[in-house]
Amino acid sequence: MTVATTSNEIAFSQRRHRAARQSISYLMQQGIENRDVISLAAGFVDEATLPVQLVRDSIGNILTDDPAGHHVLQYSTTAGDRDLRGLLLEHLAGLEQTDVSSLGVNVDDVVVTAGSQQILQHVADVLLDPGDICLVAGPTYFVFLSTLNAVGARTIAIETDEHGMRMDALEATLEQLEQSGELQRVKLIYLVSWFENPSGLTLSLDRRRQVIDIAESWSKHHRLLILEDTAYRELQYDGETLPSVWSCDDSRERVILAQTFSKSFSPGLRVGYGVLPSDIAAAIHDVKGNLDFGSANLNQQILASVLRSGAYAQHLDELRQAYRGKRDAMLAAADRYFGDIPGVSWHHPEGGLYVWMTLPESVASGFDSRLFDRAASTEGVMFVPGEICYPDDSDIRQLNQMRLSFGVETPETIDAGMQRLASATRWCLDDS
Amino acid sequence: MTVATTSNEIAFSQRRHRAARQSISYLMQQGIENRDVISLAAGFVDEATLPVQLVRDSIGNILTDDPAGHHVLQYSTTAGDRDLRGLLLEHLAGLEQTDVSSLGVNVDDVVVTAGSQQILQHVADVLLDPGDICLVAGPTYFVFLSTLNAVGARTIAIETDEHGMRMDALEATLEQLEQSGELQRVKLIYLVSWFENPSGLTLSLDRRRQVIDIAESWSKHHRLLILEDTAYRELQYDGETLPSVWSCDDSRERVILAQTFSKSFSPGLRVGYGVLPSDIAAAIHDVKGNLDFGSANLNQQILASVLRSGAYAQHLDELRQAYRGKRDAMLAAADRYFGDIPGVSWHHPEGGLYVWMTLPESVASGFDSRLFDRAASTEGVMFVPGEICYPDDSDIRQLNQMRLSFGVETPETIDAGMQRLASATRWCLDDS
Repeated sequence: MTVATTSNEIAFSQRRHRAARQSISYLMQQGIENRDVISLAAGFVDEATLPVQLVRDSIGNILTDDPAGHHVLQYSTTAGDRDLRGLLLEHLAGLEQTDVSSLGVNVDDVVVTAGSQQILQHVADVLLDPGDICLVAGPTYFVFLSTLNAVGARTIAIETDEHGMRMDALEATLEQLEQSGELQRVKLIYLVSWFENPSGLTLSLDRRRQVIDIAESWSKHHRLLILEDTAYRELQYDGETLPSVWSCDDSRERVILAQTFSKSFSPGLRVGYGVLPSDIAAAIHDVKGNLDFGSANLNQQILASVLRSGAYAQHLDELRQAYRGKRDAMLAAADRYFGDIPGVSWHHPEGGLYVWMTLPESVASGFDSRLFDRAASTEGVMFVPGEICYPDDSDIRQLNQMRLSFGVETPETIDAGMQRLASATRWCLDDS
Repeated sequence: MTVATTSNEIAFSQRRHRAARQSISYLMQQGIENRDVISLAAGFVDEATLPVQLVRDSIGNILTDDPAGHHVLQYSTTAGDRDLRGLLLEHLAGLEQTDVSSLGVNVDDVVVTAGSQQILQHVADVLLDPGDICLVAGPTYFVFLSTLNAVGARTIAIETDEHGMRMDALEATLEQLEQSGELQRVKLIYLVSWFENPSGLTLSLDRRRQVIDIAESWSKHHRLLILEDTAYRELQYDGETLPSVWSCDDSRERVILAQTFSKSFSPGLRVGYGVLPSDIAAAIHDVKGNLDFGSANLNQQILASVLRSGAYAQHLDELRQAYRGKRDAMLAAADRYFGDIPGVSWHHPEGGLYVWMTLPESVASGFDSRLFDRAASTEGVMFVPGEICYPDDSDIRQLNQMRLSFGVETPETIDAGMQRLASATRWCLDDS
């Protein structure tokens, strides 16, 4: 007998080992394979509202037979088309209710990416070594938790209340980390400042200002940065108009602003952008140069065209109407079907795509739970288990919450889905 | 006087420190900012040949007002549209002169990416830890050298001759690494198997088979993988039709095949794909799930449409005609203007976009060289310095080579560019 002289095992990188099977891919796959199930899980947008006509028209305008038209199918630059970056600053100025010259940044501080997701990955790449710490809201966007995991970062969830991440809890955590000698590993605070995925919470104006002060005063070893994810900013249905955290930072050095057109226009285009402190912009330029040399030019030109013509703004108005109706349908259905189940509560979001619901403590909602199985297999409805929206080791993690999306379904199927979900919940309660 | 209590320094990650300023971004920026300079540097494609009409027509067909049309603007899945993946396998089967059922893979082994560049980054991410070793041809594709650098890999260049990477040199290197106890750090062999960027070399059929045997026999600690970059495969103008290295591996476990439509169709769409051993596919699925949830659906559907209709194949025929003429123009100009300069030689590529030229040893060609400055500033012509196509510490690195691209210029401006470059070369020689 001889010892085998070759091995068929792959020696994967540490990064691959840390990038566990992704919840997002699992959920997207499930959503696509079970099209007959009512999906209150998918973060997909409403297909009926997608701007087919607008995109077709804008392509007709840009994809001409002349040199400019041909250029649309050429490479862009790593940072993205310069004219588009100018339009993005105008767009941002509009959101901040100011003009471009008052923004205090220029096109070199803007990077166009494949959705804002790519900015999140790039920020993690350029800032975080294994063992470095990122502070997030609990609960928060679960895909970014995966990203942090893959780069080996340690993630600490900070308690939230109805105004978003609690600033006193944030400071208390920073104090603890300083005492344990770990403050120098803290590099980033991640905030979804409007209608957070999954909680629907919006960070209050006071806290937007406070977090800048906190980031500054805790920059004892190095600059403590804030990554502000504004993916849902433009999907606002009621409530007050707020400035971004980014705009509260007069230095323009502490906040990385990430924005996407996936939710407000079309996820099939994969166009997002970041407005970045200039040293971060240079760093992201370098890592993105290795990845894709810049995002697809065709898609950038489509966006530029609809921003320039005003068609984007008009589309967004219609979109808000549609989503407002669906949000209202979900909240009404929550009242109707969950109103009389003791121990159930939910948040009324002023925008975004999600209602966050807390179940009685005895009803676990994870992928392996009886509720999830009953809902998916018997009732035919899917949701996102709340527990995946906390770091695994978080001491504030709850196991009895659900993210309910009103993105893809119609008001009618939202109502039906909520009814089914209530039925599955009652089944769990009766049976426990 | 008090000591400052806060720091404004950013504590960047190791990855960011290793991702030095990218040559590719520098070059692309230069190319865009100096549109009056004749660019024999850009790897951009010929804008006149870009399929404006085809893309417009295909968008008209797919972006309809019905649900299927709306779906085009929705998210895809992380691995890419399933129908497109089926079409890609048919496309690959055609290239390999076989049928899909004989390929020995299925759609789950295919991942659609933003150009093939993204596959290269993902492979580096899932396989290579800092200090791991990747073996490449010397010279090779300089952007991948940056990618390897950023993940902290050690890159060793293997000598090439007119048939591509020398297999005897590859084995000698593996033996040396075994003797020095470093074999277990060797994870990857990177090959650009057709018309390599920058050398224009094609790996011979014998070597395609040999490299599979070598990878197998040197899998002593773990599976030694081959990353085959076939970016230029379809831009063949003459010479024999070869099977891929991938197809020479009956196990389907050793080779990662990367392909792109950037060169053969449109770089502005950013669509490429990988055919992957199934364990690598799963790993890449996980890292891509964090990055972008899958590439832009619109762009995938455009590709699917032109592959299905046969318009892609027809376009490619026209493209080959156009590039063949430009390659011939560059080779004729090389004869005309460099033919009588002693010590200058160049390779006649059978495809791709590049002519690789070696200058007299006294004429250095780097970004900081007298030649580069003279060419860009006085003569108005740009090229890619050959030295960036070797790892910095390579003992086979040469400082007197140039990559000359016939991609973007016309036959007339190629001729003029070569004349200017010869003039700059003579100036360096006269002055030395």
